[in-house]
This record gives sequence, C-alpha cells and structure tokens, in this order.
Amino acid sequence: MNTAAATLQDLKTLEALESNVRSYSRVFPAIFSKARGSIILTNDGQKIIDFFSGAGALNYGHNDHAIRAAITDYLGSDAVVHALDMATPAKINFMETFNSTILQARGLRYRLQFTGPTGANAVEAALKLSRKGTGRHNVISFTRGYHGLSLGAVAATGNRFYRKPAGAALSGVTFMPYDGYLGPTVNTAEHLRTALMDQSSGVDLPAAILLETVQGEGGINVASEQWLRSVQTIAKDVGAFFIIDDIQMGCGRTGDFFSFEIAGLSPDVVVLSKSLSGYGLPLSMLLIKDELDGWAPGEHAGTFRGNNLALVAGTAAIDIYWRDEFFAQQVKCTGDFLHHQLLAIAARYGNRFAVRGRGMVFGFDCLAAQTADTITRKAFEKGLMIERCGPDNQVVKFLPALTIDRETLNEGLAIFDKAVAETMCRSRS
Amino acid sequence: MNTAAATLQDLKTLEALESNVRSYSRVFPAIFSKARGSIILTNDGQKIIDFFSGAGALNYGHNDHAIRAAITDYLGSDAVVHALDMATPAKINFMETFNSTILQARGLRYRLQFTGPTGANAVEAALKLSRKGTGRHNVISFTRGYHGLSLGAVAATGNRFYRKPAGAALSGVTFMPYDGYLGPTVNTAEHLRTALMDQSSGVDLPAAILLETVQGEGGINVASEQWLRSVQTIAKDVGAFFIIDDIQMGCGRTGDFFSFEIAGLSPDVVVLSKSLSGYGLPLSMLLIKDELDGWAPGEHAGTFRGNNLALVAGTAAIDIYWRDEFFAQQVKCTGDFLHHQLLAIAARYGNRFAVRGRGMVFGFDCLAAQTADTITRKAFEKGLMIERCGPDNQVVKFLPALTIDRETLNEGLAIFDKAVAETMCRSRS
Amino acid sequence: MNTAAATLQDLKTLEALESNVRSYSRVFPAIFSKARGSIILTNDGQKIIDFFSGAGALNYGHNDHAIRAAITDYLGSDAVVHALDMATPAKINFMETFNSTILQARGLRYRLQFTGPTGANAVEAALKLSRKGTGRHNVISFTRGYHGLSLGAVAATGNRFYRKPAGAALSGVTFMPYDGYLGPTVNTAEHLRTALMDQSSGVDLPAAILLETVQGEGGINVASEQWLRSVQTIAKDVGAFFIIDDIQMGCGRTGDFFSFEIAGLSPDVVVLSKSLSGYGLPLSMLLIKDELDGWAPGEHAGTFRGNNLALVAGTAAIDIYWRDEFFAQQVKCTGDFLHHQLLAIAARYGNRFAVRGRGMVFGFDCLAAQTADTITRKAFEKGLMIERCGPDNQVVKFLPALTIDRETLNEGLAIFDKAVAETMCRSRS
Amino acid sequence: MNTAAATLQDLKTLEALESNVRSYSRVFPAIFSKARGSIILTNDGQKIIDFFSGAGALNYGHNDHAIRAAITDYLGSDAVVHALDMATPAKINFMETFNSTILQARGLRYRLQFTGPTGANAVEAALKLSRKGTGRHNVISFTRGYHGLSLGAVAATGNRFYRKPAGAALSGVTFMPYDGYLGPTVNTAEHLRTALMDQSSGVDLPAAILLETVQGEGGINVASEQWLRSVQTIAKDVGAFFIIDDIQMGCGRTGDFFSFEIAGLSPDVVVLSKSLSGYGLPLSMLLIKDELDGWAPGEHAGTFRGNNLALVAGTAAIDIYWRDEFFAQQVKCTGDFLHHQLLAIAARYGNRFAVRGRGMVFGFDCLAAQTADTITRKAFEKGLMIERCGPDNQVVKFLPALTIDRETLNEGLAIFDKAVAETMCRSRS
Repeated sequence: MNTAAATLQDLKTLEALESNVRSYSRVFPAIFSKARGSIILTNDGQKIIDFFSGAGALNYGHNDHAIRAAITDYLGSDAVVHALDMATPAKINFMETFNSTILQARGLRYRLQFTGPTGANAVEAALKLSRKGTGRHNVISFTRGYHGLSLGAVAATGNRFYRKPAGAALSGVTFMPYDGYLGPTVNTAEHLRTALMDQSSGVDLPAAILLETVQGEGGINVASEQWLRSVQTIAKDVGAFFIIDDIQMGCGRTGDFFSFEIAGLSPDVVVLSKSLSGYGLPLSMLLIKDELDGWAPGEHAGTFRGNNLALVAGTAAIDIYWRDEFFAQQVKCTGDFLHHQLLAIAARYGNRFAVRGRGMVFGFDCLAAQTADTITRKAFEKGLMIERCGPDNQVVKFLPALTIDRETLNEGLAIFDKAVAETMCRSRS
Repeated sequence: MNTAAATLQDLKTLEALESNVRSYSRVFPAIFSKARGSIILTNDGQKIIDFFSGAGALNYGHNDHAIRAAITDYLGSDAVVHALDMATPAKINFMETFNSTILQARGLRYRLQFTGPTGANAVEAALKLSRKGTGRHNVISFTRGYHGLSLGAVAATGNRFYRKPAGAALSGVTFMPYDGYLGPTVNTAEHLRTALMDQSSGVDLPAAILLETVQGEGGINVASEQWLRSVQTIAKDVGAFFIIDDIQMGCGRTGDFFSFEIAGLSPDVVVLSKSLSGYGLPLSMLLIKDELDGWAPGEHAGTFRGNNLALVAGTAAIDIYWRDEFFAQQVKCTGDFLHHQLLAIAARYGNRFAVRGRGMVFGFDCLAAQTADTITRKAFEKGLMIERCGPDNQVVKFLPALTIDRETLNEGLAIFDKAVAETMCRSRS
Repeated sequence: MNTAAATLQDLKTLEALESNVRSYSRVFPAIFSKARGSIILTNDGQKIIDFFSGAGALNYGHNDHAIRAAITDYLGSDAVVHALDMATPAKINFMETFNSTILQARGLRYRLQFTGPTGANAVEAALKLSRKGTGRHNVISFTRGYHGLSLGAVAATGNRFYRKPAGAALSGVTFMPYDGYLGPTVNTAEHLRTALMDQSSGVDLPAAILLETVQGEGGINVASEQWLRSVQTIAKDVGAFFIIDDIQMGCGRTGDFFSFEIAGLSPDVVVLSKSLSGYGLPLSMLLIKDELDGWAPGEHAGTFRGNNLALVAGTAAIDIYWRDEFFAQQVKCTGDFLHHQLLAIAARYGNRFAVRGRGMVFGFDCLAAQTADTITRKAFEKGLMIERCGPDNQVVKFLPALTIDRETLNEGLAIFDKAVAETMCRSRS
Repeated sequence: MNTAAATLQDLKTLEALESNVRSYSRVFPAIFSKARGSIILTNDGQKIIDFFSGAGALNYGHNDHAIRAAITDYLGSDAVVHALDMATPAKINFMETFNSTILQARGLRYRLQFTGPTGANAVEAALKLSRKGTGRHNVISFTRGYHGLSLGAVAATGNRFYRKPAGAALSGVTFMPYDGYLGPTVNTAEHLRTALMDQSSGVDLPAAILLETVQGEGGINVASEQWLRSVQTIAKDVGAFFIIDDIQMGCGRTGDFFSFEIAGLSPDVVVLSKSLSGYGLPLSMLLIKDELDGWAPGEHAGTFRGNNLALVAGTAAIDIYWRDEFFAQQVKCTGDFLHHQLLAIAARYGNRFAVRGRGMVFGFDCLAAQTADTITRKAFEKGLMIERCGPDNQVVKFLPALTIDRETLNEGLAIFDKAVAETMCRSRS
C-alpha cells in the first residue's frame, strides 16, 4: 500500500472510531507524523508550515530540543511524574523560577494555584474563587469572549454554537460590549460603569470581571490600553475580582510575557495555560493576589493539577526564553514585520479585508465566512496550516510560533498571499 | 545545609508561593523526588510505600519502565506531541489498540471522544451530550457520588465541602439514594423507579443517570450487581443516557478493565481518565454508543484533548497489561489477599471497623474521622502513604498499584496494622 | 332563542375569545348564573350541588348573606376599597380580629404579611423570606406537593404537567418523599433526616422545609401527626424555616382553623389564602414568627395586597364562624359522616377504591384515571360538581362547603353513589 | 379618646401585628377611612388629594358610583362570585364588551387569558407562554424595567433592592439599555439588534422581548415611538414574542386605552392588570395573538383567576369610559395641562428638575433622592398624596386619577408647588 492509500485508510479508521465531535482532523485532513519548530511533516512526506501553533499551545514551536532535553532527563531519572499537588523538586523549581524570572522581574506578586491542566478548569477555579470571595453570583464577561466549554466557563463564552448544546441554564454571567463592539466612537467601558453604578440596571453587582486583552476565538479583537485600565478601575470600584484570561494571549503571544503588561494592569487573578509548559503538555495555573487567596485547603482539586512533566518543561521554557528581554524584543520585531506584510496583502484589495492584532497574533478579517474558508483551504493545500476565528469564522487567525525564523515566515506568507489572490480572482470571475 | 533543613526550606517556599488551596503537601509533608512501582523516595532519603497511587492515576505504579520506553522513543523521534484533535499515528494507534484489545475483546462497541484531559471535563462532556441528545435538563446522580469540581460536574457531586464554594446555583441534578444508602433492607433502585414513573414526584425526567459502580471519594461504597442492572433498566425505560463514571474504578481497579463488566452492563456512555495513560499523564476519554453520538463537529473542544504523549503511554499500557486475562486474574487474586488481610485487622477490634470494596479498592471504615486521621498520620510517619475518603473522611482508602508485589503489599499492611494498633491502644487509655 | 341554545352560543363565544388554557369551563360545560350555599344554578335552570367549593376558596359556601352584608355595607359607605398596604380601619379590624379570635385563642403569636392576593404569591414571599433569612438557596418540598404556578412556586410543585411549560430551570428545590410515599412501612422523615445530616448526600442545607399537612392537588395524602412533628424537629435541627402551606387545608377545611393544630405544630411561617376572605374574594397572607420577620420595608410588595373588600369579608367570616368552637365541632362531625358514607360506597366494590382524608376533605381514589373521569362526568350530568386530583387525576376529591346541610350532602352523595355504580356496572360488562 | 390619639393607637396596633415589610403605612402615616374620586379622608377628618391612585390601580378614581352600582347589583342578585374559570354571564359579558369596545374598535384581535389577579402572575404567565412557544429560555428585559416580584417576574425587574432578597439565581433574563439609557444620542435599539444578530454576543436568542412603553417604577422613562417600533421589528426578526407590559400604563393612563396605540404597535402579548377592574379589585389578563396561544388546557391556573366581581366592575368601567373617544381626549387634554404646569414649576429652578411623561403620567425628577423625599413628605403634610419612583427614588411620580377635575388638580398642584418651594428654600439656606 502506498502512503496516500495508507493515509486514506487511517483517516477512515479514525472516522469509524472517533466521535462526530472530531474537528481539526476534518479541517486538516492529513496524518501528522513529525514536527519541529514551525514545520510539520505528514506521513505522506508533505511539509506543512505551521501558522496555527496548536491554537496557541506551541508558542515556542514544536518539539524545542532544549525543552525536550529537560523532559527526557527528568523521565530518565525516575523522578516523580504524577503526584497530585504534593511537593516535588520539579514543582518547587518551577515555582521559584516563575516567581523570580517572570513575576519579580516585573514587580508582580502573586500566589500560584495549579488547577486541572485545562484552561477551562482554570477559568472555573477563578470564577469559583471570586464568587466565594465576594459572596456574589454574577460575573461580567464580554461579547465574543471565549473562556472554555465546561458549564461554568461556557456560561462566560459568547458563542451560541458552544452555548446551545449545554442544555442547561447558563446563569450567573452578564455580557457587556467589549472595546470597539459598538463602533469606534462608543466607549463601552462607560456603559459598563453606568450599568454597575445604576441600582436599577438589572445587572447585579459582579463577583468578577473576566476578560481577554485580545480576544482570540472572538476574531482577534484588541482592547485599547485605556479601555483596559478603565475596566480595571471599575472592577475595583465595585469590589469585583479583575480577572485576565491570558490562556491564549499570555506566555509571550503579544510580545510581553503577559498580555496586560503594555497597559500596566494589576489583575487580581491571571489565568494561564496553553503555552505555559512550552511543549504542548497540559498545564494550567492561576495567579492570585495574596489577599484574595480565600481558598480553604483542598476546596478546588483535580487529579492532574501540577503535572510534573509539564512543570519541568515549563521551567526550561522560562529559563530559555525569559531570562532577559531579548526574546520579547525579537517577538515584537517579528510581529511588526508580520503586521506590515498582512497590511500590504490586504491593501491590494481595497477595503475587502481588515487586519487587526498586536504582538504576534493577527486577524485577517475577510468579512465573509466563505472567503476565509476558501483562503484557508487553499493555503492548506499549498502547505500552510492556518485557522479561522470570529463569530462566523470569517477571520483568518495568524498564530505562528514566536520562534519562527524569517525565512519560514516569508514562505508561509507567500503561500497565504497566493491563496488570497486565487480566492479573490475566482470570486471576481 | 543538611537535607532535613533543605526540605523544611523547600516546604516553606511552597507555602509562600502556592495558594492556600494546596492540599496533599499538607497531608504528606515531604518532598518526593524519585518513584518506581509502589515505592517513593523523599529527598531526605526516606522510603515510602504507596497505597494511594495518585488517587487512582497510577494503577500500574510509578514510572513503569516499559511504558517509559515508549514515551522516550516517541519524544526522541520528534513525532507530534501536541496537535489538538488532528490525526497522528499515535492517536490512530491508540484508537485501534483500545478498540481491538479492550472493546472488541469484551464484545463492546463504542466511539471514542477525547475530551480535555481531566475527569471533570469528560463528565461535563458526557452530561452535555446527554442533555443535547434528550432535550432534557435534569440528571440523576447519587448520594456520596463524586464527579469532579467544574460547575457542571460539581452539581453532580454530593459533598457540600465542594458544592458550597461554587457560589452559584448547582441546578439540573437530582440526587437519589445509592445502593445501601438507606440500610441493607431498602432497595433504593425501587425508589428511583417510583420517583421517575410518578408524574408528580417533583423529579423531572432525566437526560442521564450518572453513577460510579464503586464510589471512591464517597467512602468505597459498592453497588450490587443487581442494583446496577436495575438502574440500567430504569434508564432505558425512561429514555435517559446511562452513564458510568469509571474515572477511578476503571482501567483495572476493580479487577476487570471496566468496573461494570462484573454486572454485564452496557452503559450508553463510559467516562475514563486517571489511569488511562498508565503513566500519570493527563488523558480523558468518553466511550459513546454509535447511535447516541449526537455531537456536531467541534461542539465540545479543548486544547489538550487527545494529548499524544499520553496516547502513546496509554497504548503501551494496554499492550503490556491487557493483551490477555493474566493481569486481571492477578489483580483479583492480590485483591482477595488484601481484602482478607484487612478483614483480619478489623476483626481484632470487634465492630470498631468495617471493610468494604472489591477488586483492589478497599475502604477501612473507622466510623470516626479522628480515628482515621490518626491512623493515616501514623502510617505516613512509618513510611506508608494512604489517603482517607467518605463524607467525614472517616474511611481509610486502600488504592495500591495493581502491580504491587506481595512483599511490598505485606510491608505496607504491617505498617497499617501497627498504626491501627497504636491508635486504638491510645484511644483506649 | 331558548336557553339551551343561548348557553351553547355563550360557550362558543367563550371558546372563541378565551385562551386555550381555559380549563374548568371544559370540565363543567355550563353557564353558572346564581349560587347560594352549596347550590349553584345554571342559566338553563339546572340545580347543581357543589362538592368542589371553588377549589377550596368557598369553605363557607357561596354568597353567605351575613358576609355579603358586611361587604355591601362597606361598599355603600364609600370606605376605601383599594389602598395598597396603607392603614385603613378595615385592615386594622381584620388584624385585630384575626389576632384575637384565631391566634391568641390558640396560643399562637405571629406577625401578618399581606402579599399579592394569590396563594402562589404568598408561597413566593415565604420562600423569599426564608432564603433571605438563612442565606441558603435550597428548599425541601415533597413528592406530589402543590404550591402554585409562578416560577418560584412551581419549582416546589411536583407535577410535571405544571413543571414542564415553565421552560426555565426550576432550581433551588429538592423533593423528598412525603409521608407514606414509599409504602406504609417506610418512615420517610428518617430519609429526610439522613439526607440533611449527611455532608455528602448532594442535598444542600435548606432555607426552608415547605409542606401541606394534607396534600390536596397531590391526591388527598394525609401526613401522620408523628411524621409532621418529626419534620418540624428536623427543620429546627438544620436551621431551616418550617413552612406550612395551609392555602387549601387551612380556614377550617380539616376541622380546625389551621390544619396543623391536630399535631400541635408551631410552624415558622404559615401560608393562607383561598377561603381566607370567606366569600371567594382574592386575599392571601403569611403568618411569620416575630423573630424571623427579616423583611426590609417594601422588599416584597404588590398592588392588590391587603385588598380591603376581602379584609372586610374575612373579618365577618371569622366573627361568624370562629368566635367559639361550635363550628369546628360541626365540621368534624359532618366530616365523620361523610367519611363513613364514602367508606361504605367504596366497600361495595372490594378493593377497587381507597378513601383517604380528614376533617372535610376526602379523596376517593379510583386507582385508574379513566374510572375517576367517568364517575365525575356522570356526576356532573346528574347535578353534582366534583373535581379530580392526584398525579394521574385518578382521585375524586370531596371538598364540600364546611357549611353544607346534611340533606344536601346526602343528596350529593346519592348522586355520587349512582355515578360510581353506573361506571362500575359498565366497566364490568 | 380623641381621634388623633385613636389614630396613634391604631398605627401602633398595625406596627405590632403587621410584618416589617409594610411600606405605604410608613410613608403615609394616617388611617384612611373614606374615599371618593380624587379625595381621601383620614379618620382624623383630614382631606387628602390623591395624585397616587393606588399605584395606577385607580385610574377612574376611588369608588366610582356607577361602577359601584354594578358591583352592588351583582352582589345583591346572588350571582356567582367565585368560579375559577368556569363560564358565568359576568365573564362572558366582560369578554364580549372588552372584545367589541376595546379590541375591535382598535382593529385588534386577541384571545383573553385570565391569570391569577396580580400583575406579577400575568407576567409569569406571559413569559411561560413565550418560553413554551419558542423552546427558548432567555428573555430580553430593559434597564429600570419593573415587572413584579415573584421569582420569574423579579428576574425581569431591574432594581437590585427587589432582586437581592430573592436569594436565588435570577436566571433567564438579559437586560438591555432602554431608550435613552445611554444618553439622547445613542440608539439603544441598534445595540439590541447587534447583540441578537451576533452569533457570539453572549446574548442567547430570546423567547420574548418584554417592555413597558413608559417605565413607571423605573422613573417615568418614555420610549420614543420609533424606538418601540424598532424593538418590535427586532422581536419579529429573531422570532421572539413581543410582550408589552401595560399593567400600569394601560387602561387609559397614557391617554389611549393601550399605551402602545400611539406607536401603532401590534404586540404578540399584552399584560393588563391594576386599573382593569376600574374599582381597585384584583384582576389580571393577558391578550394573546391567536396563533401564539400555545397553552394546553389548564397548564397555567390559579384560584382567583377571572374573579367575577372584578369582571363586573371592569365591564362597567369599559361601558362608562370607553364607548367613544371622549374620555381619551379628555385625559390627553388634562395631561397636557398637567405637563405644562409641571414644566412651569420646574422652570423656576433652572435645571434643578426635569419633567418627563406623557398622557397623564409624569415624573418630576429631583435628581437627588433627598430632595424628592422632602418634597413628598411636605406635600403629604399639606394634604397631597404623591409617590416617588426611579432607581434612587429621586423622581416624584404624578399619577392622578384620569377623572380628576381641574379644580382638584389645581389644588393638588398648588400644594406640590409650595412643597417644592419650601424644600428649595430650605436647601438654599
């Protein structure tokens, strides 16, 4: 059997055995066998450039060998791999490294909570902590926000596609318009303030205000620094936890380690996951201000919290990339380049496209879902893996590894450029 | 600095940097550096026998070298580690192996859904699927059941210690008495049938009936085969999904791979996690009957679903332990031995203790929380790690690795015996 | 046009103009023009004996002329009819009369809250007060309980026919088995105690335990005095409000003014409505123990609370019927007679029927809905208005006016007897 | 004992016997014994001009003798007073009269549903019907809306003072900004459209959009005709029931019988109560479009629905006031006069006050709660009963009887003018 036939058979096996819920294996119909940095190889030998990065879980690219060495050493030494939240050297190392290299270097002071290793679980824990701490039930979330799919998290997620199958009342969350949602001239932070200060607005005083500084799933919507600061002030004024969900936008995605550094925020709780382990291993964590750490011992738990292999990888990732400011500068520099390239591509088509983003996350808004679908499909055929986002999946989402080299980036951009050209050409004819 | 002082300092670091929520590092105050099989070493060089097994995530013991070899090979080959739910050889291998070795060998037929890699997430997905599939909201759960701590899962978890901090209405779940809850003479399955058949019981028709065949966290409560079959029949009669949560009791814990094999059940959905990867790596999965697989593509998702390293480990674990019936027989045999030893210890104290369990999970019910606390604390001082469970933590929970050798088991039991003796001696004086 | 044709046309008008929700005009398809005591006249001139009493709102029969005189005088004097909860002589008279004649005479001490004039509104207020007072959310209600159809009340109502159209999560209520629900040998109060004392039962500590001492809508289920006292003790032990819903069973229905006098209960809150005004005018009221009256001024309100015409009628009713013990004795005496007559009728058919009840409320359980339907339909054709209840409407519900004379009672019973005989005769053939 | 002392003692009796929840007896500390039209007499003989009208339940003033005659005749004839929803001549008369005089005369076509006789119950029924009819859970309500205090209704009520004591999750309602809420330049209907059309707004598709055309309790906020029409169109576009709560603003309060006539709306459901009986007797009703009347028989019920005495009064009220357009013209004319007088008073104080309203409902916004409190207290001392509204009770609410004569109106206005002057004088010094 040749490899093409083998691939087809493998995909059929998968189709027969895996639930209908499977998703990316439909969008990217190939078998992915090897990967390194920003390149993935299919088992047919095709080379794919990766502008997707595991939905943000692979900010340092695939299989970084320096991180891998740390994992392999750890495994080889018979150190403890699974220990719930018992103390291990791996855990203490991670905590010390994160504290000194990430927090203290930025003048931040937080306690760490290792939750179940998914972003959703960390969001659930953050909301629970805020509800317990304030004795309030309501949470403010924002239009087009995405915070996960377990019951508490999906209640704070805007997309009806995810909300509807919950089949249960998604209560306890009030959605307010995100920055820019009502057009460029409307200051939606003022609306939020109005609703919370008004005794009769119908919006109950919140336990927490939960937001992404750049909405990923929601279409790469960038909140202004001023807006973010206003919302933080409002949270303080009404006695609500100010929670930044940095699951996708943290760990360097926007240039700084935290996406909120640019605005000088001081969130009460920060939610981290995805690229925290640096190697795609499941790990999630809350940062909690000391004075708000109102948990009783064991009140929130989970079998895989603080998974040691991921902690070892995460420690290595911090040591490799965040000891000085060089990496952050490089990310911003590459991001600027990428931004200009995307603007240049968009410019060729009048106002048919819009480009949004910062750091190294950009949305190429095609305005129409069909266009975005065709472009990404064509791109994949030509060897570029890139995803879509936005309420109607009308936005092409650029999420390359932060470590991508200029050559691969250019190569990927060239494929994208061509895919756009072909799509627009066809749509004109 | 000597190691004891170093340990003390490390624990202080942890205390300073980790949230108050930390739990096992309080119960087992040591730094755990190495582990193999049923033995853990602290960084002070103390040897600890493990009767806890990562709360059931380490059924094959710590760091099984055969599984480790598969992981290390995979890492070394630059195969894809993180790919969401795209197709990889690792994933297809796991699915084929699980299907042939586990399912087909037992005459079972299910589709696999890889959820976010925590048990709670898998439970959330199972409930969502049942609510979507039936258009109903209510779920039947049972007294003392434990299904996780995210909002949807904790609503189905009985313990108020976990329910209260949710700070939100835990709606959509009706608790019914588990087998034996109202004493040995009351058939609680009949109560369930009565409530569901009565148009005016106040119990809405359920989307699902969710249960553990042996309740772990709830105090090692063993449902009878007859009761389980009755509940399955009731589920069928009222058109509800019959969901077995085999997170802790599956993967061989009760002797068979699935805990429900003994009763010949055919659940609509099975929830697996914990020992599924066999190495303590996060992995969770639903088994769904074909005709109930009502998901739309992508409706439930998660960044770390189907984590490839865990799939590789899980494939190895199945290949090593489940190719024939030898391992299951061995587990049952060791379990019987353990059961008799526990009964013998209990017998020395009249009716001061009760022993419950099957396969290799047993509860040594001390009736009083204080007794159980003292026993487990003394045991840890003497080199045995063992946990407590039950509504008041009054039950000592025996969860040794299924692979434990007789010598280590005896050694651990001797420590336990002594801890009980000392506790009872003291309490008499 | 003759009257029969006129009636037909009127019913068609009603059908054309009134919502499908109309109910009793289908069950009793006639135009009811005049009424007095236990006799109603249709506009065709037919005489109907009333064993239904406005679902319990007409305990003193239709249009009691002594009460009517009070109403007519009040109207004629231009006294204030509508005043929300401002002070009026009518209101103060009512309060003083109720306090002295009803409460003080029984050694009871309560504050009065006039709620919106429906039973459901009073139940809503009672639950709200208990939730506010305890800071808890959960409420214990009982299988087959009926407490009204607004969202808060229907959540505590057992019947799915009423629960389903709510279209919203009916959260915050746990249903427990009522006395006798699990057969005569099971003490369901013990189940309640077990569930509330167990930290892991899944039943959250309740704000209130809400119950009827005799379930009306639920099928005339009579709780034993012992059971009622046990439940009251449990409520006290867990710090929950003990609320008796005496909407249908109060105001003399069970012989005493309050249905709970027989058991010597001391409820924290009592809910009254239906026959409180004595003339079928809307009026509802809570009795609240002083120390639990935790309302802030105006926190619960309603335009028609304390409707003065109803208060005037209610004062008259108390003055006429409750100044001494004569009326209560008469009711019990008539009730005993009725009970024996029903037992005698049932006895003719072996164990085809069961009779339950106390005071002057009885259920004639036909076991099958069809039988009960035929009997009540035949009865109406013969001139007896009587309703059905129970989860499947299988119970004929005897609710004659407490003031019914023996002759009319016998006449009604003779019709019923004949309707049963005809039904059973037919069903045998 | 003189009358002042008697009053004092009566108020003490009330204080001792009535729940803390009592409200208007604190605001208006007098005993009100007689009333006619717009004049109330206290039992001390003081004459009070009524600009409050039973919170809108007395649009035709107190004790209209023509209506009274109908009630008294009815009572005197021993016609049926209480009959649940059975057919009576009184009910059929009301339905025919309402249908021909109110509905057909306006080209409207609705079915009538008599709910429990409180506004809240009618709102509960309307929401239930919309949820049942659409299979959706969410309801759109508006900032500062007021729809009642039972659990389903209070969830749609904006004021936290009422929301908080519910002690339960007020789920299933999304609040959107009412017309003008975000300032005069923001079109909030556009916001609503945006949120409902956006798949990711977090606002679930609603079963209903529920609103008052003029918000009473919320501070006399007047929606523009254009805004109302836009919202109606949006409801249609998203398949939601368009429900007008005309409990306070219907029955002529805004000049027309229905408050929405001015905008030419065609609501799917209209909620009526308060002045529907015309005499302050409890009565509530839904108007439902034929094709949306999705009730099963008996699905929503209530003991006091369609209370006959109120139906008789309501029929008389329609016959007296609504047979031609004269009354509506008179109301508008008096309203215009009142409006100008209020504007004139406000004008004397620069921009210290704002006047809003239409028909015969006006808010005199004092901007500060303290000012409004002093003014209304002084007014009552001087013989004018007038209430406050708005989120902080900062708005004096003019709700005189629609039938008030010019002389009494002027007299009341003079008192108000003086109360304002004294208040402002004092606050300046």
